[in-house]
Amino acid sequence: MKRIGMLTSGGDCQALNATMRGVVKGLHSIFDEVEIYGFLDGYKGLMYGNYRKLKPSDFSGILTMGGTILGTSRQPFKMMGVPTEDGLDKVPAMKRTYKDLKLDCLVVLGGNGSQKTANLLREEGLNVIGLPKTIDNDIWGTDMTFGFQSAVDIATETLDCIHTTAASHGRVFVVEIMGHKVGHIALHAGIAGGADVILLPEIPYDIKNVFKAIEKRNKAGKKFTILAVAEGAISKEIAELPKKERKAKLLERTQPVAYEIADQIRAKFNNDVRVTVPGHTQRGGSPDAFDRVISSRFGAKAAQLIADKDFGKLVVLRNNVVDAIPMEESAGKLKYVSPDDAIVKEAKTLGICFGD
Amino acid sequence: MKRIGMLTSGGDCQALNATMRGVVKGLHSIFDEVEIYGFLDGYKGLMYGNYRKLKPSDFSGILTMGGTILGTSRQPFKMMGVPTEDGLDKVPAMKRTYKDLKLDCLVVLGGNGSQKTANLLREEGLNVIGLPKTIDNDIWGTDMTFGFQSAVDIATETLDCIHTTAASHGRVFVVEIMGHKVGHIALHAGIAGGADVILLPEIPYDIKNVFKAIEKRNKAGKKFTILAVAEGAISKEIAELPKKERKAKLLERTQPVAYEIADQIRAKFNNDVRVTVPGHTQRGGSPDAFDRVISSRFGAKAAQLIADKDFGKLVVLRNNVVDAIPMEESAGKLKYVSPDDAIVKEAKTLGICFGD
Amino acid sequence: MKRIGMLTSGGDCQALNATMRGVVKGLHSIFDEVEIYGFLDGYKGLMYGNYRKLKPSDFSGILTMGGTILGTSRQPFKMMGVPTEDGLDKVPAMKRTYKDLKLDCLVVLGGNGSQKTANLLREEGLNVIGLPKTIDNDIWGTDMTFGFQSAVDIATETLDCIHTTAASHGRVFVVEIMGHKVGHIALHAGIAGGADVILLPEIPYDIKNVFKAIEKRNKAGKKFTILAVAEGAISKEIAELPKKERKAKLLERTQPVAYEIADQIRAKFNNDVRVTVPGHTQRGGSPDAFDRVISSRFGAKAAQLIADKDFGKLVVLRNNVVDAIPMEESAGKLKYVSPDDAIVKEAKTLGICFGD
Amino acid sequence: MKRIGMLTSGGDCQALNATMRGVVKGLHSIFDEVEIYGFLDGYKGLMYGNYRKLKPSDFSGILTMGGTILGTSRQPFKMMGVPTEDGLDKVPAMKRTYKDLKLDCLVVLGGNGSQKTANLLREEGLNVIGLPKTIDNDIWGTDMTFGFQSAVDIATETLDCIHTTAASHGRVFVVEIMGHKVGHIALHAGIAGGADVILLPEIPYDIKNVFKAIEKRNKAGKKFTILAVAEGAISKEIAELPKKERKAKLLERTQPVAYEIADQIRAKFNNDVRVTVPGHTQRGGSPDAFDRVISSRFGAKAAQLIADKDFGKLVVLRNNVVDAIPMEESAGKLKYVSPDDAIVKEAKTLGICFGD
Repeated sequence: MKRIGMLTSGGDCQALNATMRGVVKGLHSIFDEVEIYGFLDGYKGLMYGNYRKLKPSDFSGILTMGGTILGTSRQPFKMMGVPTEDGLDKVPAMKRTYKDLKLDCLVVLGGNGSQKTANLLREEGLNVIGLPKTIDNDIWGTDMTFGFQSAVDIATETLDCIHTTAASHGRVFVVEIMGHKVGHIALHAGIAGGADVILLPEIPYDIKNVFKAIEKRNKAGKKFTILAVAEGAISKEIAELPKKERKAKLLERTQPVAYEIADQIRAKFNNDVRVTVPGHTQRGGSPDAFDRVISSRFGAKAAQLIADKDFGKLVVLRNNVVDAIPMEESAGKLKYVSPDDAIVKEAKTLGICFGD
Repeated sequence: MKRIGMLTSGGDCQALNATMRGVVKGLHSIFDEVEIYGFLDGYKGLMYGNYRKLKPSDFSGILTMGGTILGTSRQPFKMMGVPTEDGLDKVPAMKRTYKDLKLDCLVVLGGNGSQKTANLLREEGLNVIGLPKTIDNDIWGTDMTFGFQSAVDIATETLDCIHTTAASHGRVFVVEIMGHKVGHIALHAGIAGGADVILLPEIPYDIKNVFKAIEKRNKAGKKFTILAVAEGAISKEIAELPKKERKAKLLERTQPVAYEIADQIRAKFNNDVRVTVPGHTQRGGSPDAFDRVISSRFGAKAAQLIADKDFGKLVVLRNNVVDAIPMEESAGKLKYVSPDDAIVKEAKTLGICFGD
Repeated sequence: MKRIGMLTSGGDCQALNATMRGVVKGLHSIFDEVEIYGFLDGYKGLMYGNYRKLKPSDFSGILTMGGTILGTSRQPFKMMGVPTEDGLDKVPAMKRTYKDLKLDCLVVLGGNGSQKTANLLREEGLNVIGLPKTIDNDIWGTDMTFGFQSAVDIATETLDCIHTTAASHGRVFVVEIMGHKVGHIALHAGIAGGADVILLPEIPYDIKNVFKAIEKRNKAGKKFTILAVAEGAISKEIAELPKKERKAKLLERTQPVAYEIADQIRAKFNNDVRVTVPGHTQRGGSPDAFDRVISSRFGAKAAQLIADKDFGKLVVLRNNVVDAIPMEESAGKLKYVSPDDAIVKEAKTLGICFGD
Repeated sequence: MKRIGMLTSGGDCQALNATMRGVVKGLHSIFDEVEIYGFLDGYKGLMYGNYRKLKPSDFSGILTMGGTILGTSRQPFKMMGVPTEDGLDKVPAMKRTYKDLKLDCLVVLGGNGSQKTANLLREEGLNVIGLPKTIDNDIWGTDMTFGFQSAVDIATETLDCIHTTAASHGRVFVVEIMGHKVGHIALHAGIAGGADVILLPEIPYDIKNVFKAIEKRNKAGKKFTILAVAEGAISKEIAELPKKERKAKLLERTQPVAYEIADQIRAKFNNDVRVTVPGHTQRGGSPDAFDRVISSRFGAKAAQLIADKDFGKLVVLRNNVVDAIPMEESAGKLKYVSPDDAIVKEAKTLGICFGD
């Protein structure tokens, strides 16, 4: 009899259920007897001992279902040493639940913050397996997280819809795409959606270069221009400030950067500029086929790691191979877009302006 | 030889090209020789004589294409009697283009404002046929406009995406749906997307009733609530003000109503409330099958009317029959949602709160 | 306390769950206490007393879910008087279950055959409400059945996919669309998908007219032609035979009509002709926004009829109004496409060939 | 002034236009003056000198458009040495066109057969760049071809649709997925679509193992089973025959393998078994975001190779990097699924039966 705990943590995304289904299908095909304990609303469930014992039928039909049947909560442990509001000491509380349920392993589906916490539990002696969830694809050590491609699909559909309306009206459209610290979604969706300008947190922009890109299109007789702007896009002026002043400057902002850029373009060209913010839709809906395949493969790998008692690992995709790396290698590190990435250079070859 | 002018006016929507294709296919099957003059960017093209002579091949492959191959412009003629910035007298200028090209008929694809202008040209003696375009489905005299169902699809997809993320996090989501004066899209998408609360311009809300709806769901153990809010949703307090004060009050607003409502819910429940604004995506992308069918039928009808020299008509759908009514019957009138509409009562039977 | 039985019968379609959700949401908003008995696999469940007592939570999240949570079975009662294989007398067995469970009403979601059976149970004194389910939209008395528009969407998507490949290769494509006796899906999807030829059971075709349509396109420089052919499309030769001979002739067929027509075109033009059969996908997947709206409205109406003890009715949509008609008015009658329907004439105006 | 020829050859797929757009956007951003000669209908156009001179505007708006604006033709050169029907010597004819137009390079978007021909032209001294097109993802030397992921999407959607109908009726469904020689699409779509059985050309099946998989599901209370079967799936019995006898045996077949397997299941279990064949839809429709990204990157790379006069190369994706390999390395080699591939083993861990 194996007793496996499982939880989903951080912002939700499209293939959480698909991945859990993969883990559970894998466990049932490897072990004769398995009990699955699903903790509710992320680490909170582990801390307070809130869980559901899950039957195989709970995982039927959820391959295509967005969200998470376990619920999730965001960044609950910014300071792990600090007790909760109700005086609970977090880590010991989570360890206690793990021990009380006599778990053989805890499977954590989560992004950077959640994997950091998972690593902390590993250091405390728990058997933990991490699965790389996030729409942002910013987990260090894996080429691909599940959720990313589906988020790119939705952001791209938004750009497609905007394309027809922009072309009809001869407008400039600024589409704000998720990504506060990293710009992978905006980069991929921008290319896929035929954006003319892509602005990312990792490549500070000079608004004058954006103006030039618009002028160039105008001269070529193109009536419209589309900008794919990551939430965390930053101007060179602000990026070059010392850290403290930069933070202060960013806090002064009264509106999202997409609106700010729209205002600047409007002021410059006196034309019709619109902003669209697909927002949380980028986390929602069904996972696409790509995500379902890697989710299923990740799940199978997690089950195999449990069978091999190969704990303390984060499941990753590297050069098309599903693999596992020590959790501590990845924990706390982000995978950024670099201006030197081949894909950025290729995008520039296509004539896309990054504002740098 | 028939010489037919055509233009698309007002906000773009999904089946403009499909409808033009229908008109042109119909004309070519009825007449041996037809010349199609497509005016660019709406009435501006007619006014300044900017047009493209269109070949049948220009209409190949555009059935599924969003936007308009002719371009469009919004409400150019708020005051038809006023000359343009460059001193052009609008109506005479348009008449001149019509006469110069020796047109037999002008086909206008447009919403309320555009049909009003079309009617004005009719009064001036031009042969005009109107086609009821608008995502809002607010043209008086037709059960259905083309563009509406496709817009409902996109708003519904947004609600679907929000559903999975709302359920995973136990959040309240306010989704702002297009519709400043009329709430048909929000009403239909709200029902289709399983919204718990629908707020419309035509049915002023009391925020206390919205609170009650959220409390009721909480008591029933539902962790999340979804509101579909039309852009023009209005509170009872404001709706009941005298017109002048109401206008002043609305102008004071510093943020869209969806954000205002989100703030109120947050203040009341101290919980996690998010806003999503699909915005212009609701106008974009490919038309759905429903819109392509009615667009094609509308187009065929327009061609038939031209063959019958039955001018001055607006093509409409009434009780599933494609028909035509005198333009002046519809011009200047909006088709509102009524609180007494059967669909509103049915939605209430399903437990949906309208805030009234 | 109200005790309501519910079953889904016949071929599955896209909005069965959405409709049941509507009925149940409606019942819970009208009555303080309701018990829902869901019979499994259609009338079989009623006959053998196989049911699940359903909680409100069983209907959460199923608005978008294809298929039916109750399961269904096809035409189980071709001869209602004949006992089942295990000697069960059908009608009495169903009445017994109804009485044993002390039901106040039985809600039947089904197509023509299923509504006929529902009517029979009504004649036997049971309180029955029918809901018009079928992708074929062939139930007499309602303008629209739920499932139809979603099926049209999928058939149209198939035509869209075929369009790009047909155009690239310069091929003739024959797409077989569901509809043995009635051609509503093929007619609507054919128009929406830009088919050049539409062949329906109700409008027998002369293959020579199909040849002419292909030749006409070839002459106009079009490299490809797309045919939307209903499963039950029939040639004039066969249609004009006396009934007995016609049946014999149809039984002789060794392949579906789409393949037969493809062979004839290939023989005539010696060109590249392909056949595509989307088949059961037309019944599957999520309901579209249109279907979810009418399903929800139908469900609310059914709940209202139960509240009003207005039994023996079939819920229908007539001129955009959700209404109810006596079951016996509809039972046993099919709603066909007529060559005289305005939509057929409009399609002909667009240049679409029906082979007649 | 650069003069670049371009052609699309073989079966069409979803991102041909997106890739050509990438090439052309790249060329225009690198070179001040470029002339693009698009050969019509694949190598035929090169052979007969049929081409269109393409303007930048020809590539506007085609990023999302399925098919190919140049047209294509299948395997025109089974025997390159043999003259055409009209006595044309193929290779010299193609060289002549190339020389006459004073081309600097010929860009070939094509699959295995087409790249073999491209390599032959390279050997004849022409400057050639190959771009790896095919829904099958079977080109040796690249991890990914464009078209593959979009085809997987469509095959997966078919499986999704079938899922709801299979579950509702408790049926066995056999879905035939494209892939005569290689099974990558069926493998990926099968995993993504939650198939219970996946049968591939590379892994011969024993029907008894398929029966066992169905029995296992029946015992687990699952009412339905879904098989994803590649067109070229082959039974062990036939696969083990000597080549000549195997060929003979396959020629004897009167129906596609999916129907054969359905018959066997029906005979064994006496149950309701259905077959669905999405067919050519798998080649059609818009490319997905994934394909548009790699297409754009491939196109940029091709432009760069031309700038670098680095001819005779096939553009490939290797470990997430867009690269180029000598054409002769890939030409004539297929990339098969191997039973030892990690993805196959992972799928087995998930409980998927491959019949081996």
